[in-house]
Amino acid sequence: MKTSELYIRTFKEAPAEEVSKNAQLLIRAGYIYKVMAGVYAYSPLGIRVLENIKQVVREEMNAIGGQELIMSSLQKRETWETTSRWDDEVVDVWFKSHLKDGTEVGFAWSHEEAIIEMLKLYLSSYKDLPIYVYQFQTKLRNELRAKSGIMRGREFIMKDMYSCSLDAEHHEAFYQGCIEAYMRVFNRLGIGDETYVTFASGGAFTQFSHEFQTLCDAGEDVIYLVPSTKEAFNEEIAPAKAAPFEQNEEQKPFEEVEGAGIVGVTALAKQLGLPEQQTTKTMLYAVDGGDKLIAAVVRGDHDINEDKLKTVSSTQKVALATPEQVKAATGAEIGYAGVVNLPEHITLFVDDSCESLINFETGCNKTNFHARYVNWERDVPKPAQFYDIKIAKQGDIHPETGEVYVVHKTAEVGNIFNFGLQKSQDTDFTYTNEKGEQQFVHLGSYGIGVTRLMGVLAEKCSDEKGLVWPMSVAPYQVYIVQIGTDPEIAAEAAKLCEIAQSWGVSVLYDDSDKRPGEKFADADLLGIPHRVVVSTKTIKAGEYEYKARTSTEISMVSAETLAKLLTA
Amino acid sequence: MKTSELYIRTFKEAPAEEVSKNAQLLIRAGYIYKVMAGVYAYSPLGIRVLENIKQVVREEMNAIGGQELIMSSLQKRETWETTSRWDDEVVDVWFKSHLKDGTEVGFAWSHEEAIIEMLKLYLSSYKDLPIYVYQFQTKLRNELRAKSGIMRGREFIMKDMYSCSLDAEHHEAFYQGCIEAYMRVFNRLGIGDETYVTFASGGAFTQFSHEFQTLCDAGEDVIYLVPSTKEAFNEEIAPAKAAPFEQNEEQKPFEEVEGAGIVGVTALAKQLGLPEQQTTKTMLYAVDGGDKLIAAVVRGDHDINEDKLKTVSSTQKVALATPEQVKAATGAEIGYAGVVNLPEHITLFVDDSCESLINFETGCNKTNFHARYVNWERDVPKPAQFYDIKIAKQGDIHPETGEVYVVHKTAEVGNIFNFGLQKSQDTDFTYTNEKGEQQFVHLGSYGIGVTRLMGVLAEKCSDEKGLVWPMSVAPYQVYIVQIGTDPEIAAEAAKLCEIAQSWGVSVLYDDSDKRPGEKFADADLLGIPHRVVVSTKTIKAGEYEYKARTSTEISMVSAETLAKLLTA
Repeated sequence: MKTSELYIRTFKEAPAEEVSKNAQLLIRAGYIYKVMAGVYAYSPLGIRVLENIKQVVREEMNAIGGQELIMSSLQKRETWETTSRWDDEVVDVWFKSHLKDGTEVGFAWSHEEAIIEMLKLYLSSYKDLPIYVYQFQTKLRNELRAKSGIMRGREFIMKDMYSCSLDAEHHEAFYQGCIEAYMRVFNRLGIGDETYVTFASGGAFTQFSHEFQTLCDAGEDVIYLVPSTKEAFNEEIAPAKAAPFEQNEEQKPFEEVEGAGIVGVTALAKQLGLPEQQTTKTMLYAVDGGDKLIAAVVRGDHDINEDKLKTVSSTQKVALATPEQVKAATGAEIGYAGVVNLPEHITLFVDDSCESLINFETGCNKTNFHARYVNWERDVPKPAQFYDIKIAKQGDIHPETGEVYVVHKTAEVGNIFNFGLQKSQDTDFTYTNEKGEQQFVHLGSYGIGVTRLMGVLAEKCSDEKGLVWPMSVAPYQVYIVQIGTDPEIAAEAAKLCEIAQSWGVSVLYDDSDKRPGEKFADADLLGIPHRVVVSTKTIKAGEYEYKARTSTEISMVSAETLAKLLTA
Repeated sequence: MKTSELYIRTFKEAPAEEVSKNAQLLIRAGYIYKVMAGVYAYSPLGIRVLENIKQVVREEMNAIGGQELIMSSLQKRETWETTSRWDDEVVDVWFKSHLKDGTEVGFAWSHEEAIIEMLKLYLSSYKDLPIYVYQFQTKLRNELRAKSGIMRGREFIMKDMYSCSLDAEHHEAFYQGCIEAYMRVFNRLGIGDETYVTFASGGAFTQFSHEFQTLCDAGEDVIYLVPSTKEAFNEEIAPAKAAPFEQNEEQKPFEEVEGAGIVGVTALAKQLGLPEQQTTKTMLYAVDGGDKLIAAVVRGDHDINEDKLKTVSSTQKVALATPEQVKAATGAEIGYAGVVNLPEHITLFVDDSCESLINFETGCNKTNFHARYVNWERDVPKPAQFYDIKIAKQGDIHPETGEVYVVHKTAEVGNIFNFGLQKSQDTDFTYTNEKGEQQFVHLGSYGIGVTRLMGVLAEKCSDEKGLVWPMSVAPYQVYIVQIGTDPEIAAEAAKLCEIAQSWGVSVLYDDSDKRPGEKFADADLLGIPHRVVVSTKTIKAGEYEYKARTSTEISMVSAETLAKLLTA
């Protein structure tokens, strides 16, 4: 392809309102065009990158038995009502509209329910199993904000796969096989080394899910990595021991300290002359929608993880108690809850970060008063059991190995859900076994954000000069630059394009009349892996000037060497 | 691919509510799944057919310089307001929804305005021209009814191309080149011989457009074909002379005949004892939204073509006059308008089918009265000019050649619009020429309905047993059937699959345990071009049993002959 034949061009500046690096670079280089916030068009170059990514994904999905199909964007209300997911309160990203006769329709943000509904037509017997189907589908999600370029769009391409298995064993084997296939995808895209399979919180149908998280400063997620095992957890579920807080001090006399309206741990610790780790944070929660309260306590430098709290307290739902509920239960205004004077009917859940504290601060359940120099046993009964109910933070420890977590900002590039039988039961999705009995189908769902992956690659594979595509996704493998418009040079450059193509190398040929510096800047911005210059000088030398995008070294090479470099 | 590994299956019956042949066949054979009226999912087999069609289209678009991109489904209001096409009164197929902040968004039913808006970013100089871009895009159209299967969906795939040219000459050359490219597409898909480039009415931005109409009984269109030249017209614009009506009779005395409340030409002709062709039909129209009326007259066996009437009367808008307007203008109730007693202020446009009538019937503009045995000159002034303001009908004549039209039911498979400068002017789409002057861009737009094409092929390429795909779109080239589950037969069939694949032939291998009759029925229903049977008998003979889908002949052939048949 000649650059002169492409309608796109490069830009020195990205649109001012575009804050994400991936969109800035991809717009400047002409890969994408911003239609509106979170909605982008893809140019011929952009499509080549997308198709390269899709092809890698497709090959790996086919290798594990996937069959490609394509579902529809338009969705029926009834399809999603079986699982309550039509409701905007349950799923807040629906775009909806109406047919002419007033029938409400939705635009697919997922296809789980739609796939199940369809497969009910085809799946009847155990002989029909397993079924693994996938699609590359444009999903529409009515996101509140869309500021991450193509990493989180209102319109984006996703590969979603669905597995139907006979029993738990087959299901588990496929699920594991899919994890491996996903890692092969990320390896082939050049980000395997920096992509971790993490434990993540589940959705409506499963307790846990797995995510594939790639190290990325622009990512919206944080993972906690165990250095020795490479086991990784999403922040929201990472089990954690707090970083140790060493105290070599004698027990001091218990004090009540007056302190009205102190906001935040830092101010409180300062006011009381204590390190933050010597304060505690007590939150009262109403459980399961009623007026019954529980108390959750963490060390002052941490926060309470409500999901963990729900698990240890065996409740379905926790909600911060209202000021009225707090007042009714403890007699104090909100902001003074603590383990001192806590009414007995409020069950106490204390994080293990508080177990070894000496002379700590806590609320007195008395308006305007905090307790200082509190000690377990002496001042308040020591709880029989401590829990992990904290949100993990930098410096925390993985409980099983005792290792300090390495914490990374990451972007989710894949997400897989192990539904087991839950979702089949909810949707009445069954088959007949050999004995003629109805059995629920074991289900899994497996997503890869294709356009998001392109965005993550743009974030990670780039430098101050522009994009640096991995070979597996680069829109072209070599950028051939002609310096000057002399017919002899043009002829030589055109000849090289043909030669390179005969080697099986795809070529973007800069035949423009731009100045050499602009052409080199374009080559860098576009991020094509190899650059070859044809000029009077190279023709005279009977060689080519070669530079890899990943290197600053420029060298004169023979045709033979060039062939090796380009086809390596 | 083994049929046992496909999740789909064949059905003896199509869903009862599915009335179109294409959807019935494609659903029964497992190519598509109906999500809701006008919305279908495509199975692995369906995708293969679609991709084959897309690839043919893609190659031909690339060959004329097209660059593939992909726009977004989500559309901004502002993009379409410049041409008034956001308005639901102007475009009645929009699906619309809202962002969380209340901003209205649309889902693309076309991309003309969106493409122009985008290209404004890239096109500035004459040096950037020409630009030819195209995409395969899922369009959403809120159709009132959707009963034609995948021939007219609410969600469908379209190839839409847009051309930006420097001047009229380049524009016209590309436009003609695109017509030729389209015909190459239809030829490669096996329907070139039955596809005609027709003159069609234009849209908002052009007087005429061209359509590509394929003969198809399930089609929604009718074309008028000139036998000798193969020139074709869509019904709504076909120029027409009425079939001659021979009259060998003397002028009879003029009569007024009482006849209240006669409805329809047939009843009127019978009542008056005249052939329908000897009656006339006079319609009064209010022009340009006002109270000024014109009268349009055609021979009784025809109807008035309002588009033609607008052209000959040089009006933008005609609307049938209301009973009140008729009464005010003529003094008569509605239903008695005619050329007798017509007030002079009502301009008369008479179709040329009425020019040579003798002793004809017409309204008297007198409630309850018709005039019989009317003759031009004698009873009413003969108009100075007669026009073609009729809707063409079977038996009519192409005026230029004098040939009787051949009339066909057809399906539109392509549609191209020659906007010239009109649309650029409306959207202020310009470039700077060599002299530094702003010039409007010459624009064209070129569509092919990809899923519709698949539907048309299913309609045309099928028989009572099922589909009969042309080789260029068939999902697989050969259907290999194993008769019996004997391991030796299975091994032999598997070997044949490998051999065929080594010939470059794609194989669908029926390894099921169905009965032979069912397998043959499946092979016919699926419409794979070649069928090869492996059985005890064929193994004994050292040959294969071959049948082409298009033939009833079954023959035993050697491997060598089979290779020739499959790769022909």
